[in-house]
Amino acid sequence: MNLLLILSYVGKILRMEALFLLPPMLISFWHNERASVLAFLATAALLLVVGQIFVRLRPKGRSIYTREAFAIVGLTWIAISFFGALPFWFSGAIPHLLDACFETVSGFTTTGSTILTNIEATPMGMLFWRSCIVWLGGMGVLVFFLAIADKASKQGEGSYYIVQAESPGPTVGKLVPKMSHSAAILYLIYIALTLLLILLLLLGGMPLFDSITTAFCTAGTGGFSVRSASLGAYDSTYLQGVVSVFMAVFGVNFNIYYLVLLGQVSKVLRNEELRLYLGILTAATLAVAFNIRPLFDNIWQALHHSLFQVSSIMTTTGFSTVDFNYWPGFSKMILLLLMIAGGSAGSTAGGIKAVRLLLLGKSFRAGLQKAYHPRSVKVIRMDGKLVEDEVLHGVGTYMIAYCFLAVASLALVALEGHSLETTVSAVLTCLNNVGPGLDLVGPAASFAPLSNLSKSVLIADMLIGRLEIFPILLLFAPTAWRRGH
Amino acid sequence: MNLLLILSYVGKILRMEALFLLPPMLISFWHNERASVLAFLATAALLLVVGQIFVRLRPKGRSIYTREAFAIVGLTWIAISFFGALPFWFSGAIPHLLDACFETVSGFTTTGSTILTNIEATPMGMLFWRSCIVWLGGMGVLVFFLAIADKASKQGEGSYYIVQAESPGPTVGKLVPKMSHSAAILYLIYIALTLLLILLLLLGGMPLFDSITTAFCTAGTGGFSVRSASLGAYDSTYLQGVVSVFMAVFGVNFNIYYLVLLGQVSKVLRNEELRLYLGILTAATLAVAFNIRPLFDNIWQALHHSLFQVSSIMTTTGFSTVDFNYWPGFSKMILLLLMIAGGSAGSTAGGIKAVRLLLLGKSFRAGLQKAYHPRSVKVIRMDGKLVEDEVLHGVGTYMIAYCFLAVASLALVALEGHSLETTVSAVLTCLNNVGPGLDLVGPAASFAPLSNLSKSVLIADMLIGRLEIFPILLLFAPTAWRRGH
Repeated sequence: MNLLLILSYVGKILRMEALFLLPPMLISFWHNERASVLAFLATAALLLVVGQIFVRLRPKGRSIYTREAFAIVGLTWIAISFFGALPFWFSGAIPHLLDACFETVSGFTTTGSTILTNIEATPMGMLFWRSCIVWLGGMGVLVFFLAIADKASKQGEGSYYIVQAESPGPTVGKLVPKMSHSAAILYLIYIALTLLLILLLLLGGMPLFDSITTAFCTAGTGGFSVRSASLGAYDSTYLQGVVSVFMAVFGVNFNIYYLVLLGQVSKVLRNEELRLYLGILTAATLAVAFNIRPLFDNIWQALHHSLFQVSSIMTTTGFSTVDFNYWPGFSKMILLLLMIAGGSAGSTAGGIKAVRLLLLGKSFRAGLQKAYHPRSVKVIRMDGKLVEDEVLHGVGTYMIAYCFLAVASLALVALEGHSLETTVSAVLTCLNNVGPGLDLVGPAASFAPLSNLSKSVLIADMLIGRLEIFPILLLFAPTAWRRGH
Repeated sequence: MNLLLILSYVGKILRMEALFLLPPMLISFWHNERASVLAFLATAALLLVVGQIFVRLRPKGRSIYTREAFAIVGLTWIAISFFGALPFWFSGAIPHLLDACFETVSGFTTTGSTILTNIEATPMGMLFWRSCIVWLGGMGVLVFFLAIADKASKQGEGSYYIVQAESPGPTVGKLVPKMSHSAAILYLIYIALTLLLILLLLLGGMPLFDSITTAFCTAGTGGFSVRSASLGAYDSTYLQGVVSVFMAVFGVNFNIYYLVLLGQVSKVLRNEELRLYLGILTAATLAVAFNIRPLFDNIWQALHHSLFQVSSIMTTTGFSTVDFNYWPGFSKMILLLLMIAGGSAGSTAGGIKAVRLLLLGKSFRAGLQKAYHPRSVKVIRMDGKLVEDEVLHGVGTYMIAYCFLAVASLALVALEGHSLETTVSAVLTCLNNVGPGLDLVGPAASFAPLSNLSKSVLIADMLIGRLEIFPILLLFAPTAWRRGH
């Protein structure tokens, strides 16, 4: 692979990251957080220097194919996570580097698991940086870069491969022929929805700072909150309701919104992934509401909290209004299963994604047909179109990797000897980029008490989960780095 | 489908089941258990009458293909389980019919989960019947029937499809050209190994009754014990050691023993499934031994109990020497994961089977290759031979069905509101035909306190798990029963 070319891309993104440090730095300046201002400045300087060095590399050849794209995405995410952690560490807001890395990876991957134990004591600038990270990670840093400064498209399909490698889901749909335009459209929709949410939160009386950070983390579906009690801190059914709905909105494939803008509503209504996603959301909300009914005064309250929690967990946001650690076993099981299912492809949500569940279901039907009628031939269609074998194989490979990874992580985290509930939920919540787990790592708790080994495993899980396995695995494949490959 | 033909097969097996009631009836007679003798007699009479009615049906056409074979196996297993439960119920040994069905299904599927709370108070004849069921279910009732009275082979491939539908694993190897001879060879090996085990247990001072029942349940890998403390009741390292080794022996593909008999040792040593199976067994034993070391006086004791438990859980037998509910989290996690992995195909063990894990691993490697080098072509080989796409698709379909089933069962059993550990381990232990779970359904406990809904779900899980999904699902597929199909 063309290492110099790959590094030159990493360099461009690192320079871009420096710019994103500006708003949080200004907030720290405004609130007189001296250590934070210095930490942001030092990190920005470092980013510019390292970024500039990488950008100055003169690679031979500029062709980007699948493998280069995977490597660019994998290395970029590791690099921005490491540098993004430095402000926390430099300023002393998070004393240990591993913890700072955990928090940053949790942000970029829009997981939202936190190691902070006293959020209200954390500098404002740092809290703002945390939510910027989530917002940027949600739609993708490379997608953002391609949307504003696309050079890759000159080299043919390069930017297509990069978007495909960074975006969640088994396939990526080009909205318009030019990939950079597609990326720009996605980001414009993303920005518009985020602004709308900020406005609605302000209307509900939420302070400006809280509104912006909450909107950023809702949009990126990475439930960092600026309050220890998460959304439970705002005792307002309106605010919690708005966030409930918007979490679900950001868990929808963004191509759907583009179709809406184009006025193709009938196509939207027939979209099979959307139907499955909304179907699961509705069914789970009703089932949980029925189950937790006795804990609340009336069915409406139960429905309100059920919708909030189901929407939060299924879109892998991770906000909470109440501590669902104390909900009955059935509701906890449903939430655990929703963690794995996740949101839609092409959204900011994590998990396996509804479209993969759909394809697995269709493969199963076809397989059953084949088992009972060995000579029959059955093709698999989605939204009326034939699904290529390559896509189905990709889903299969992803699922196997997902299971192997989960098993290895469970064994390693279990070494700590916590309860099964803690271990299983910690791994699932990180691998699926959800945020809170159960028991020791429940919504009211933090990941701080875990061992360094567990934190390292979970950091890897978050990255691998967000980038859907292949980009990170490639970095560890010895053959990928051989000359001539 | 040809319902009359299918029922005529069920009838033959029901008549055969009546004969198997004879030995336990004699034991009850010998021990003066009057109610049990009558219960066995009544059941036997009922079996003969119903069996005779079914056998007398005159089906048009006698062709058996995949679907007919699945239906024969599925219906037979449901029928023998129901009738096999009657002696327990008639005699009052198990007062509720659902509980009696749970116990019988647990036996035939070689799960070994029990609802008995006071095993020592259960009539001897009933305990003997319980272990006969396990022994017969282990290698398969239809395989047994084909081995002793093969009529199906006259109709061409019929018996091949039946053996394939009843035997665990993605493929079935014909040892010799005639399927009935293959079945006979398998049963001869099975009987020889069982007799050897009885002899070794007697030599260790175990009473005759205990030796036979323990050997039957070890051979079938369905850990019913005639003692509440399971193998912990025999305070003998020799006895526990012998059972450790034999559990592992019965988790090996029986084709391997045939190869050994033929003297083809080099083929045995190169067998990839055997290597993976023994590799996992060894690695897990060492890891658990290291983890539980502090609970025992020395490393040898830790190794002894680790080997016993790993061998018991991985081969899905379910015997125990100690209550591993109190082992540290890591060991419990390893045991849970081993439950899912299971033994080898073509053995009496349950679970996903080593060969499927092997094929999943190979598919994953091929898929990764394809993701990074889209134009490459990679074929999958096992034991030097090309693996057909059909087999790989079958494994995929099985895995999807397995996951969907697990999810549905988890949600239903979670309705009871027990701990996550109880719910997850109860479903996994039944779906994989293991036996004991953790927490409330741990090795020292019983499944009796579970609700009727949970017991019904777990009964279905055991049957579906043992028959590897397709035969039971077919019975519920409306299209399968349409005319002309």
